[in-house]
Amino acid sequence: MNERKEPTYLYSEKQVTEKSEVARRFLETRMRLNEHVDKADNFLVKRFYNLDHNTYLEGALPAKTKELMGLVASAVLRCDDCIQYHIVQSYRLGATRPEQEEAINVALVVGGSIVVPHLRRAYELLAELYR
Amino acid sequence: MNERKEPTYLYSEKQVTEKSEVARRFLETRMRLNEHVDKADNFLVKRFYNLDHNTYLEGALPAKTKELMGLVASAVLRCDDCIQYHIVQSYRLGATRPEQEEAINVALVVGGSIVVPHLRRAYELLAELYR
Amino acid sequence: MNERKEPTYLYSEKQVTEKSEVARRFLETRMRLNEHVDKADNFLVKRFYNLDHNTYLEGALPAKTKELMGLVASAVLRCDDCIQYHIVQSYRLGATRPEQEEAINVALVVGGSIVVPHLRRAYELLAELYR
Amino acid sequence: MNERKEPTYLYSEKQVTEKSEVARRFLETRMRLNEHVDKADNFLVKRFYNLDHNTYLEGALPAKTKELMGLVASAVLRCDDCIQYHIVQSYRLGATRPEQEEAINVALVVGGSIVVPHLRRAYELLAELYR
Amino acid sequence: MNERKEPTYLYSEKQVTEKSEVARRFLETRMRLNEHVDKADNFLVKRFYNLDHNTYLEGALPAKTKELMGLVASAVLRCDDCIQYHIVQSYRLGATRPEQEEAINVALVVGGSIVVPHLRRAYELLAELYR
Amino acid sequence: MNERKEPTYLYSEKQVTEKSEVARRFLETRMRLNEHVDKADNFLVKRFYNLDHNTYLEGALPAKTKELMGLVASAVLRCDDCIQYHIVQSYRLGATRPEQEEAINVALVVGGSIVVPHLRRAYELLAELYR
Repeated sequence: MNERKEPTYLYSEKQVTEKSEVARRFLETRMRLNEHVDKADNFLVKRFYNLDHNTYLEGALPAKTKELMGLVASAVLRCDDCIQYHIVQSYRLGATRPEQEEAINVALVVGGSIVVPHLRRAYELLAELYR
Repeated sequence: MNERKEPTYLYSEKQVTEKSEVARRFLETRMRLNEHVDKADNFLVKRFYNLDHNTYLEGALPAKTKELMGLVASAVLRCDDCIQYHIVQSYRLGATRPEQEEAINVALVVGGSIVVPHLRRAYELLAELYR
Repeated sequence: MNERKEPTYLYSEKQVTEKSEVARRFLETRMRLNEHVDKADNFLVKRFYNLDHNTYLEGALPAKTKELMGLVASAVLRCDDCIQYHIVQSYRLGATRPEQEEAINVALVVGGSIVVPHLRRAYELLAELYR
Repeated sequence: MNERKEPTYLYSEKQVTEKSEVARRFLETRMRLNEHVDKADNFLVKRFYNLDHNTYLEGALPAKTKELMGLVASAVLRCDDCIQYHIVQSYRLGATRPEQEEAINVALVVGGSIVVPHLRRAYELLAELYR
Repeated sequence: MNERKEPTYLYSEKQVTEKSEVARRFLETRMRLNEHVDKADNFLVKRFYNLDHNTYLEGALPAKTKELMGLVASAVLRCDDCIQYHIVQSYRLGATRPEQEEAINVALVVGGSIVVPHLRRAYELLAELYR
Repeated sequence: MNERKEPTYLYSEKQVTEKSEVARRFLETRMRLNEHVDKADNFLVKRFYNLDHNTYLEGALPAKTKELMGLVASAVLRCDDCIQYHIVQSYRLGATRPEQEEAINVALVVGGSIVVPHLRRAYELLAELYR
């Protein structure tokens, strides 16, 4: 088994929200809604969150690569919240803009034009983060 | 064939909208948009609505169970409107909060983390209904 | 190989936005977001857009029929932006309202009740375009 | 409301199975499995089948066009059985091979490379039908 | 938190395979392939399997109801292996045939005609189990 | 724009088919079916194939990483052919087994238990390739 460890972030969530209005709105809404989930204290949900967290740790693949993979998966499944989350995480781990765009291109070709509206919104976020 | 009959609701839609702002907004938007559908008077759409209605009647399975199944299906297919509708219907038929959470858990495990943003919004509605 | 050529539109995008507030908001947001995509000038995205454009040209099937097919595909994949786009394009190419409704009916029956919330929003746009 | 009526088929199912081995296997398996469904005599399933049948009748759009739309929907949702069914139906209603290919192209561009394995199998069937 | 506990099965997997050839083939293939997964001993996969197992235990909802919910989710997501698994589990927990059919009906109406090929195969399994 | 160039494969397709029976069957069927597509010589399909090819070239991200991303996308969209293709491509570009497993884990957590049957079949292929 490969060692798993927490990745080192180049930027904090706070720095991200200062750069990007889109990211700020997303992260604030996410935090507000997660309070309902935290308060409910559902055993299986907590275990799922924990499993999810473990999936993106440093391992055989760098955390940055796995966040970009999360971006690809989110884009083909067309989940804007998930796309924004993984773009922010990839950015915080040092992904360059061309790397983010190539990940989105894989999703575009695999997923087709139905991905385009999500790509447009993703590019708005990229424009704010990499200005 | 099992008998099918209308279920008995414990709460009216009006009582639901008085309890929950999220439900009120959802039901009002739904009613406003349904007016366009009603006015169009499309034969096949009306038949589909009728078939849909019949699917959730009391039968071999209680109406409450089928509404919770509708919730599971809606959550794995990631349709917020449908999730809100079936949470409201399940609530009106007496589903407890733990029952709603367990239905959502099935959807979370079957459908994966892509369900999480919808789960967050579902928990906001649950918090308002079961306060 | 069948000849492909640009279709002849009966209405301009401007005429559409004057008729329908829903279409106006959609087209303005789309244009605003597409500026981010244009500015990024990503080679593969541009090629995909070009391929997408070529798919809906006049060919063995009329452009109108292919836009209605785009509507069916968008509806079963449940992408509101895509649905609105193809309704507008079909309208501009002379599709009648019954033709649009029959296309949506195919999507409804193939895709199920999960399509209904998108059908409701589609009917709002149809009501504005075909008033 | 538009009149709906049964379409006129150019070829019988029997003629199709004599031309194509792929179609023959598909139609035989479908018939064999449908016997289980028929025997179960489930009220809602029968109503759904009836609704489905009505969706593809001649109407504002020709039956052939709607079968091709069913093909597009089936291809983006990646259901081989459904793809084969609608290719056969479109063929029986006189769709040309270029028309079938253009319908599949809409699905390919909307649905992306994930459609490609289904496109390959569809082309095998097209090759047998249009030899 | 609701207590979770192992459900009591009315029938063993062995009894199921003796009744149904479809179930036997499914369970044998599943076992054979799971050996590759077990041998790989991947930490996250094992945790996911464990989480999955916990989701269907007796809780606020009976295990049988949750297996039927798993069936609904599997059917709208159109996964034959998953459908077969949850039909077998529901059967082992005492679900009647009308209960299984009503669960599938919810999936049919939510998921549309694209569910029909999976429904046909499900009915073959039901016919063998409930003969 | 980043330079795009053909990647350097460590193993040929022939070497892969000699190692793995699963890969051999997949590649042979794919080749056989692609002959139908090649023969049809459809302009848009050829352009799509070309675009698809360009997506996975060396660029800002290594070709290996993009093939693993293709694997993630294929697994959450549950396309066995696509999964097998990208596992083979990743293998040919030097991906280790733990890298392949971590990519699949991202897909498992994002896509949920519905991915499990595909994961099982993927692990059979991994077992043959990395013996």
